[in-house]
Amino acid sequence: MAVLVQKYGGTSVGSIDKIKNIARRVIADKEKGNDMVIVVSAMGKSTDKLVEMAKAISENPCNREMDMLLSTGEQITISLLSMALKEYGYDSISLTGFQAGIITEGDHTKNRIAEIEIENIKNHLKNGKIVVVAGFQGINENGDITTLGRGGSDTTAVALAARLKCQCEIYTDVDGIYSVDPRVFPEAKKLEVVSYEEMMEMASLGAGVMETRAVEIGFKYKVPIYVALNTGEVIGTYIKEHEKVMEEKVITGLAATEDVLMITINNVEYNSKNIALIFKKLAKYNVNIDMISQTAPFNGVVNVSFTASKNDIFAIDKVVKKLKNELKNIEVSKDSNISKISVVGIGMMNQSGVAGKVFKIFSDNNIEFKQVTTSEISISYTIDAEDKIKAITVLAKELDL
Amino acid sequence: MAVLVQKYGGTSVGSIDKIKNIARRVIADKEKGNDMVIVVSAMGKSTDKLVEMAKAISENPCNREMDMLLSTGEQITISLLSMALKEYGYDSISLTGFQAGIITEGDHTKNRIAEIEIENIKNHLKNGKIVVVAGFQGINENGDITTLGRGGSDTTAVALAARLKCQCEIYTDVDGIYSVDPRVFPEAKKLEVVSYEEMMEMASLGAGVMETRAVEIGFKYKVPIYVALNTGEVIGTYIKEHEKVMEEKVITGLAATEDVLMITINNVEYNSKNIALIFKKLAKYNVNIDMISQTAPFNGVVNVSFTASKNDIFAIDKVVKKLKNELKNIEVSKDSNISKISVVGIGMMNQSGVAGKVFKIFSDNNIEFKQVTTSEISISYTIDAEDKIKAITVLAKELDL
Repeated sequence: MAVLVQKYGGTSVGSIDKIKNIARRVIADKEKGNDMVIVVSAMGKSTDKLVEMAKAISENPCNREMDMLLSTGEQITISLLSMALKEYGYDSISLTGFQAGIITEGDHTKNRIAEIEIENIKNHLKNGKIVVVAGFQGINENGDITTLGRGGSDTTAVALAARLKCQCEIYTDVDGIYSVDPRVFPEAKKLEVVSYEEMMEMASLGAGVMETRAVEIGFKYKVPIYVALNTGEVIGTYIKEHEKVMEEKVITGLAATEDVLMITINNVEYNSKNIALIFKKLAKYNVNIDMISQTAPFNGVVNVSFTASKNDIFAIDKVVKKLKNELKNIEVSKDSNISKISVVGIGMMNQSGVAGKVFKIFSDNNIEFKQVTTSEISISYTIDAEDKIKAITVLAKELDL
Repeated sequence: MAVLVQKYGGTSVGSIDKIKNIARRVIADKEKGNDMVIVVSAMGKSTDKLVEMAKAISENPCNREMDMLLSTGEQITISLLSMALKEYGYDSISLTGFQAGIITEGDHTKNRIAEIEIENIKNHLKNGKIVVVAGFQGINENGDITTLGRGGSDTTAVALAARLKCQCEIYTDVDGIYSVDPRVFPEAKKLEVVSYEEMMEMASLGAGVMETRAVEIGFKYKVPIYVALNTGEVIGTYIKEHEKVMEEKVITGLAATEDVLMITINNVEYNSKNIALIFKKLAKYNVNIDMISQTAPFNGVVNVSFTASKNDIFAIDKVVKKLKNELKNIEVSKDSNISKISVVGIGMMNQSGVAGKVFKIFSDNNIEFKQVTTSEISISYTIDAEDKIKAITVLAKELDL
């Protein structure tokens, strides 16, 4: 029998009735002859309630204890879904992260999966059970319960599919992957298929459907991923290998992020050690840097801009304070009224002219950009937050997305 | 440093403010030079909410999944209490049942503690941490999360104190152990000290302050137990070895239970195999039998009465159905409008006349009893539920409780 991993997010399991619906959907797929492994998130807004309780105790609660607290959310869902499956007459077993053999490493609240001891799940499948696994969590080598941070349940699902060598279906509250966020540009086209590379760019750029890390694991282990609406009634989007995506378009998608903080450090004495120092310190405080741009040195100094999540503002402030002690002349400015717009397409690798086209569209529409960075298959711009909707609309129209 | 185990029940940790209060109390005892191990229950009525969700899925949810579900309640409390302790500047670590090394065996939802691998807790104490342990839960040899059933958190606390060879303090919403339930007989006297044996009788007879099993472990390992109000402001009751209880009274206490179902099986062909069959079948369905009385055989048949919890009514119905196939002539009657009254006192072992005294009190007050059983240190009666208050009041007065 083929194994199939399915993941249902928080909205999909947000109530008892929804959990019963998911149970029926899982059973239908089991009846088609699949060995089912189901990964679920915490019910609806239950994680928010737990966070609220923690915040009522401490502004900055201990991360180990946060993991202990938040992991209960998924544990509740797995037990209820497993009960529902049994109620419908199907043998099932729920497994927490540690029971599913998900070994993690790294900092609490943002652990990474180090390995999965898959034998337990395989044995339960062999015994005909539907295996229900708590997403987002694992256990570290000290025996502490850990969580995987943002996109953790997707990561759990894709990692399990990688170890089980099977397809991974991600069911969510959007009906697939669009070239542009349809909430911003309603005429956006849904993609039938997208390559891992494009999806990683789009995900890390805030397309919001899936987190990059889950797609990265899919890419690394060649796990076919299918993203679709949790009702199962609408055809979604496949994420697969680039080679298997026929007739690729030059530009596949457009992504926008709002939760962006842009920091510019001016007047850094030019010296590779100084630049390294900046990013070493940021890494030490676990600040996740997104865009980095540095201009060429002029008069012995360089300017560096980078973007990060607004959540990291306190950590960044600490780093800046320390940096000012070591790099005496620097001047630091912060801008939080920023959006990031990215144009993504694997076809960019082979076709030139995309950057020029985008610069012209911006210029024709009086959109000013502050920072530009490029990768093999994407170009990203930071712009004033108030220009975001305009930028998305004109780019989507002009680039036929 | 002396180790001290404290247990706080659901009402004591029923809100964030209450958890903060408990943290301050724990810190005060830590400051007195104790190594602290704190066992907590789920917050307030949170377990009821979880049960409600399960019942919305299945009338008879899978017990393994119930354990998975219910164990999240304590996990939430331990993380929040540990956060609060850290917020006040005290190093702390929360441990679930499996992390605390609590290995259990038996049926899901009513597991027993098989052993405690105490090294992890000892190491954390050695490192100066306040250890916060989830009560009521453990892990079995299959790696399944288990719960200990009623009184589980008390059991966890006393068992930990047994392994740590220290005193166990049980903080609850009553201010100690009374000779009679003060809600029923307001003039009841609080006991300063009570022996394990008396407490076991009283607990199993429904005194409600502590479950028998926790006291049993205390008895077996000679753990001094102190039961007191969770504010810590009122002197509570010590439970300790019989030899250490000076000047014992003949009768220490009176206990009453309402949740009683009395079953009478008449016309059982006299034959020890038949009686054994009845109780074997009941055990197979996990029906917990309390009182058993059997009269001497007459005309080749005997009558057997027993009491059980009303919760077991469905299981009992199933057993009765099966029994009727095998023991053709039996007649079964059920009475659920029953209270059980027990008079307990370790002094009964050495003094006679208590039974006679109680029979006389009942007779003088026109209280009819249906069933009588005795142990070394107690006499129990089943009576009509409507006579309960009257029976308690007259017994308490006449026996000076």
